[in-house]
Amino acid sequence: MQKNLHVSVLLDFYGDMLTDNQQALVGHYYNEDLSLAEIAQHEGITRQGVRDTIKRAEVQLFEMEEKLGFIKKHQELSAALEKIRTAMTEIAKYNLRYGCSREINEQARMVYELTEELD
Amino acid sequence: MQKNLHVSVLLDFYGDMLTDNQQALVGHYYNEDLSLAEIAQHEGITRQGVRDTIKRAEVQLFEMEEKLGFIKKHQELSAALEKIRTAMTEIAKYNLRYGCSREINEQARMVYELTEELD
Repeated sequence: MQKNLHVSVLLDFYGDMLTDNQQALVGHYYNEDLSLAEIAQHEGITRQGVRDTIKRAEVQLFEMEEKLGFIKKHQELSAALEKIRTAMTEIAKYNLRYGCSREINEQARMVYELTEELD
Repeated sequence: MQKNLHVSVLLDFYGDMLTDNQQALVGHYYNEDLSLAEIAQHEGITRQGVRDTIKRAEVQLFEMEEKLGFIKKHQELSAALEKIRTAMTEIAKYNLRYGCSREINEQARMVYELTEELD
């Protein structure tokens, strides 16, 4: 069983749809980077039991992204926010060169900071 | 059973997590505004059967928003995008008054249009 790093992201987005037990085991495996054997010992269950629970949770996580696509949408949003920040930097630069309007500067900075909060 | 208009929005966001049958019945009831009796006749099942399926689907939809909160996040995003559009209008206005930079105008318009696509 190879660790798929994308699962950490899926867990961030959709983890609350899993049972507490699934969340705990997937978290140990992907976020704390424990081995199946370590988790088995820690939880007092078999290595195969840990493996089955994690596999089943992974399938559910991938299915949710397949159906809901919120990670994909979030990535598109991030790219757009990055574009907006670049535009704000450009506006501030041209403003400094041509207009020196305090208001333009303030609005551009406010929008820049707002996109960082959204990201 | 009173129609909860919020269910249409929930169906938009989370509908793909329901079965085809659930999606169809909830869609008839909330999007096409059919009555339980009309749906029952159309589907060849009892009115009570339609009601139970829709009620169960509603519970699932509300639970998903409770756990994932994507509608709430989307509303926060929409409010932020509106703020960005207002800022772009302000920037264009001050630019017209003080600087008249073509670049500032173009960047502000690009960002304005981008936020409309995201909304």
